[in-house]
Amino acid sequence: MKTTEIKKVADVELKNPILVEGFPGLGMVGSIATKYLVKQLKTKKLALLHSPYFPYHVIVNKKGSARLLRGEFYYWKNETGENDLIFLVGDSQPQTIEGQFEVANSILDFAEKKKVKTVVTIGGYRNEVEETPNVVAVATNPVLYENALKSKALPSEAGTPIVGTAGLLLGLAKFRNLDAVCLLGETRGYLPDPKTAKHVLEILKELLNIDADLDGLDEEIERSKEILGRMRDIEKRRVKYMQKMRRVEEERITYIS
Amino acid sequence: MKTTEIKKVADVELKNPILVEGFPGLGMVGSIATKYLVKQLKTKKLALLHSPYFPYHVIVNKKGSARLLRGEFYYWKNETGENDLIFLVGDSQPQTIEGQFEVANSILDFAEKKKVKTVVTIGGYRNEVEETPNVVAVATNPVLYENALKSKALPSEAGTPIVGTAGLLLGLAKFRNLDAVCLLGETRGYLPDPKTAKHVLEILKELLNIDADLDGLDEEIERSKEILGRMRDIEKRRVKYMQKMRRVEEERITYIS
Amino acid sequence: MKTTEIKKVADVELKNPILVEGFPGLGMVGSIATKYLVKQLKTKKLALLHSPYFPYHVIVNKKGSARLLRGEFYYWKNETGENDLIFLVGDSQPQTIEGQFEVANSILDFAEKKKVKTVVTIGGYRNEVEETPNVVAVATNPVLYENALKSKALPSEAGTPIVGTAGLLLGLAKFRNLDAVCLLGETRGYLPDPKTAKHVLEILKELLNIDADLDGLDEEIERSKEILGRMRDIEKRRVKYMQKMRRVEEERITYIS
Amino acid sequence: MKTTEIKKVADVELKNPILVEGFPGLGMVGSIATKYLVKQLKTKKLALLHSPYFPYHVIVNKKGSARLLRGEFYYWKNETGENDLIFLVGDSQPQTIEGQFEVANSILDFAEKKKVKTVVTIGGYRNEVEETPNVVAVATNPVLYENALKSKALPSEAGTPIVGTAGLLLGLAKFRNLDAVCLLGETRGYLPDPKTAKHVLEILKELLNIDADLDGLDEEIERSKEILGRMRDIEKRRVKYMQKMRRVEEERITYIS
Repeated sequence: MKTTEIKKVADVELKNPILVEGFPGLGMVGSIATKYLVKQLKTKKLALLHSPYFPYHVIVNKKGSARLLRGEFYYWKNETGENDLIFLVGDSQPQTIEGQFEVANSILDFAEKKKVKTVVTIGGYRNEVEETPNVVAVATNPVLYENALKSKALPSEAGTPIVGTAGLLLGLAKFRNLDAVCLLGETRGYLPDPKTAKHVLEILKELLNIDADLDGLDEEIERSKEILGRMRDIEKRRVKYMQKMRRVEEERITYIS
Repeated sequence: MKTTEIKKVADVELKNPILVEGFPGLGMVGSIATKYLVKQLKTKKLALLHSPYFPYHVIVNKKGSARLLRGEFYYWKNETGENDLIFLVGDSQPQTIEGQFEVANSILDFAEKKKVKTVVTIGGYRNEVEETPNVVAVATNPVLYENALKSKALPSEAGTPIVGTAGLLLGLAKFRNLDAVCLLGETRGYLPDPKTAKHVLEILKELLNIDADLDGLDEEIERSKEILGRMRDIEKRRVKYMQKMRRVEEERITYIS
Repeated sequence: MKTTEIKKVADVELKNPILVEGFPGLGMVGSIATKYLVKQLKTKKLALLHSPYFPYHVIVNKKGSARLLRGEFYYWKNETGENDLIFLVGDSQPQTIEGQFEVANSILDFAEKKKVKTVVTIGGYRNEVEETPNVVAVATNPVLYENALKSKALPSEAGTPIVGTAGLLLGLAKFRNLDAVCLLGETRGYLPDPKTAKHVLEILKELLNIDADLDGLDEEIERSKEILGRMRDIEKRRVKYMQKMRRVEEERITYIS
Repeated sequence: MKTTEIKKVADVELKNPILVEGFPGLGMVGSIATKYLVKQLKTKKLALLHSPYFPYHVIVNKKGSARLLRGEFYYWKNETGENDLIFLVGDSQPQTIEGQFEVANSILDFAEKKKVKTVVTIGGYRNEVEETPNVVAVATNPVLYENALKSKALPSEAGTPIVGTAGLLLGLAKFRNLDAVCLLGETRGYLPDPKTAKHVLEILKELLNIDADLDGLDEEIERSKEILGRMRDIEKRRVKYMQKMRRVEEERITYIS
């Protein structure tokens, strides 16, 4: 393997397939959302992506075996709708600029071979989240953009950069005259965020007109709330301590000067 | 897109064209100056430059669409003078050493195809600016250098490095036996500096013997003055605070020892 | 040399050879273990690996000569058993991601040319070591994994990353349908650790069914104990000093507030 | 220019030429020594080396012109001795690992085309220098090594790494079966060190059996002594200040606890 390689695992004909990508990123939003659908929809493995631009280590699994970091394509036959789906999940973002471009180009080469016309990428954007996290849409095509807004995504602000594979696929898809839309869920970003992932999936379901039970994410959401609660307690104590220290320091200055 | 690609958008014959480059850099001097002329002269789009060496994100625009970072070439038909102009503006400097060289070489390949014989690059150099910012010239050719000085650019000091695309185009142009001149405006550099950009443009107008109203920059200059004023207030308060702290510290040392 | 090159030094037929790799890494476990066997078994030089991805310096030897950093392959004719052995030792890990993948691929290309079917890699993993350091196994093949466990290696925990050449060879071997097993010795990791290396070798001897006297490592183990003892004394004093400082600081705060 | 390029400037036959390299490095020892000989021996320009691995800026000269960073080859016809000389000086070390290897390989390709059989590289090694700086030799060939020691170079210690072009040329020359010797002058390294450069040249003169007046370096040595003197004063004051601060701090701790 000298360059990025995609090896197919299954040989299937897909009906007007749409590619849905969710590599790890801010709050793991894309990763959590895509992996959930891969399980929930009982998808099947389609292909594996290996690349010398993934970090140079292997991951050990439960059976004492190890494998390279990789991307995994899964397919889902849509019995009732117009578009079969291809999902892409992965262990890591490609490293280095060259790697980012090479991997994104390889993904689109593969997608075009599979006759994909539309690409959906999922990611997060950093923000202080109120009760319900917002989801914004960006698209290379006005019709797709309108559809995303109709599915209750919010319009995105001009100027926001979308970093990494989710962004590059969008930009490179446009460059190749493919349609692409990116759904970005609002997240604090420093912890895996299943809640935001669920909100993105609600919009994705409408956008792609598919049916999938999202309740399976609720347990994960509960767990992440607990972790967040504990981290906030730690943070509060830290802030309090810092304030005390500053007060002490100020008093000393006042006292001495 | 595996390497830098330039796709032409318009198919025009240009008359002894001169290339004027202004990628983002110190004080955004080149960028502001070149983008201003692109608008003011009502230029038309000539070509787009994409490269895997630009940062791996996309930029979202006002209509919710997104695109890769890129360079844009514009052309201007010079009705009265000898030379048509090609402008090159961009979103970013290429990243990595390899990227800098590859993009600069691609630009010159394209320029040579368009029969460009002379290249003008615009940038900034860091200095404490007095009332009127200086503009210095560097050129690969004595005649061009003389012309720049006649247009009231100042001679540059030996030894100054010119970093990035503005410098590399100069060096690589010389390497290819193209003429090139670089105009560098003096700037503090930590904020966009339309005032310096205006001064560069005044010299550029004389050098290229073109006519362009520069008053449109004045509003931007006013705005940047206000920002600068506010930043200076903050800085003054910071310095004052630091001085106080140092005094307190010194007194304490005196007191204890 | 523009890419990684392996030059053979000896021309031998090897009987079902197994490759044993030990590049420098955590606690130098792989390096110490492999180099010890290279000497102890009176192996002979088989080939040299040079690469533009090793650090760009040369090493001076005792005779005032210098050479590039490199990898060295040695072979050992197994008179009584089924498998001859090839050992790979080296001066350094390859630098950069690209380098890691290129060198690992070159090693496997060479191994396959030599008809290697099984690869053993040796490394360390960071842990606070009790009296006897543990050795865990990871393998690409269940039979090999079972054999490693029978040889008293412990099962590894899922999720552990194995970084660098030891890990990549494992992952890339699997990718090429070669069998591979990695033995990782527990080590504090900040000093060369011959004790852990010895424990790894005890397991390796059983796994490969070879006979080698390991007592030669005991002197090195004694020396490293002394160094460790001295470093612990320094550390203890440092901790004590830090505690005193913190106490002082706390008292001051109590005193002032 | 996509890769390193060497363009010849003069077309000469050289008699058993020896290449003497001195790129910038520790204390600028190699650079100062080689550039001095280039002037002193009235050498002529032979070729220019350009590379996309030099830093991406240009250097402005006294006439307001600019050029890329580069390497320069000069030749010297040795009227009385056996070997003509080729000197290589440069503005910078190549950047990145790949660059280091590519440039060193290009230099040796060129040298071999010119029928060079022996390469001399010059550099510095960091040490606290007594009155007279030592010069050590490292060579790929025992005869050359002996000659260097006879010319009063000292034997080098095993294990020292020689970093950068001076080292890589040595290692890659050996790899190509060329003879090579490296002379390393002892230097504090943080300032240009003409004194050490002069000592290296004294040994180089004997080694190559050439005659060159080295007194021209004395003025530069005087200037560097003054700078060093001033820097030492600053350093002394800094140390004194630090000691005072530490004393104050300790007293405070004693006082409070």
